[in-house]
Amino acid sequence: MSQFVVAACQMDSKDDKQDNLDRALSFVDEAARAGADLVTFPEMVTYMGDRDRYPDVSEPAAGATVQQFAEKAREHGLYVHTGSFFEQIPDSERVYNTSAVIDPDGAVLDTYRKVHLFDIELEGSVEQQESAYVAPGDDIVTVETDLATLGLSICYDLRFPRLYQTMAQQGANVFLVPAAFTMYTGKDHWETLLRARAIENQAWVVAPAQIGNKPASEPTYGRTLVVDPWGNVVAKASDRETMLTATIDQEYLEDVRRDMQTLQHARPNVYREPN
Amino acid sequence: MSQFVVAACQMDSKDDKQDNLDRALSFVDEAARAGADLVTFPEMVTYMGDRDRYPDVSEPAAGATVQQFAEKAREHGLYVHTGSFFEQIPDSERVYNTSAVIDPDGAVLDTYRKVHLFDIELEGSVEQQESAYVAPGDDIVTVETDLATLGLSICYDLRFPRLYQTMAQQGANVFLVPAAFTMYTGKDHWETLLRARAIENQAWVVAPAQIGNKPASEPTYGRTLVVDPWGNVVAKASDRETMLTATIDQEYLEDVRRDMQTLQHARPNVYREPN
Repeated sequence: MSQFVVAACQMDSKDDKQDNLDRALSFVDEAARAGADLVTFPEMVTYMGDRDRYPDVSEPAAGATVQQFAEKAREHGLYVHTGSFFEQIPDSERVYNTSAVIDPDGAVLDTYRKVHLFDIELEGSVEQQESAYVAPGDDIVTVETDLATLGLSICYDLRFPRLYQTMAQQGANVFLVPAAFTMYTGKDHWETLLRARAIENQAWVVAPAQIGNKPASEPTYGRTLVVDPWGNVVAKASDRETMLTATIDQEYLEDVRRDMQTLQHARPNVYREPN
Repeated sequence: MSQFVVAACQMDSKDDKQDNLDRALSFVDEAARAGADLVTFPEMVTYMGDRDRYPDVSEPAAGATVQQFAEKAREHGLYVHTGSFFEQIPDSERVYNTSAVIDPDGAVLDTYRKVHLFDIELEGSVEQQESAYVAPGDDIVTVETDLATLGLSICYDLRFPRLYQTMAQQGANVFLVPAAFTMYTGKDHWETLLRARAIENQAWVVAPAQIGNKPASEPTYGRTLVVDPWGNVVAKASDRETMLTATIDQEYLEDVRRDMQTLQHARPNVYREPN
């Protein structure tokens, strides 16, 4: 489809899983009323509480959370990207940080497990060791839909350009970047890196974010963004739980990719970093 | 050295080669007076005129331009990065777009030939086919000096993150990005991409730019920048021919790289783009 409407939901998820999910499901209703073809959610849409409880709030990839999103997708006949939830790993104390793409019939097209985990120690500020609680995924996931080819990623993944380059080479033209950036890193890195990924891959970027203070982690940065393939921010959320919509125009993407053929100009034989 | 001073010269080079070079050499004097340890220049420092004249103004890599810069380097006992000039290719109608790093004894430590060439057709705006006049280099170049390990690149290279990632993995901690960005692309891409390369590689970025209208090409964007390893712009030039200085502090870089180990968190085995 040459044009479609994406809704990006900015959420202030706390530690009440069902309450978070109920608000997310209401956003799907709101997105349908706004004429959206695809609704997207941030990282950890269903739970931002104690890390020790991640296994308790986790569920199978096709569990209750995805089922409820799927029902809404079918009810309104639109695509849903669930943002991320915690996926159970049998016989493990860790979980996956997983997102799912659901089609308008309610079928799960694919899931993505966060590949790069956020381990950071900023003295006196942000300290997180995501890998102590979350196991990394090992697969890059692009999803062909009637609307676009979606390239899936989650939060800290954004710092790794080769992930996006690989997805672009696999045909992705819309990158989804659900996130829960901290205030400290977000203020300096969020918009810059999102725009860079759009520019260097000449792709749309949809980045639904967590906003607000959290029970057991740093304040989050918010600023849900939609960026066009020239790197121009075409929609940005205010600092509250809210939904924004934007029109994704693939003809514009084709114009940008025709005029400056960055993807063809890469010289992989020259780059010799270890593989 | 844990701290040193870099000077970045923003030039309005036109089509008079000796006049451009004379102004550049004066900047080396000025940088020495300002206490600089390293002086850097933009792309095409000696000539921004008719493309058909590139072969006429080209010279061997160790030609008169580099020799004059080397003399100044020795005179003041500082490092000079020449920005780029046109290097002769025997029996070819094309030239290389080449830069050189000169040490305080006047010795050329290494040269870099631009790897990614700027071929673009923006309808009614920027149209350039650099590859019709310039042959691409095939080698990534990092240069160890007493000050830092410099990672060399030129202008359009900036759009290709793997080049910088490779240089970071080879030890580069200061990227040099001499450029002549056009107004049209610069306004949306220049600062964003420079900051992204700094953030994702946790490296200093020094980016001396061409400013002003040119006899035979589009107006250039200017905004010479120095970016720290957190992605913060620490120095920015006004819109004129001018020189700025900044202190490069490698202890700060080590702090940033210790707190968030992005370079170690990359997962090259997961990326499967064609090599």
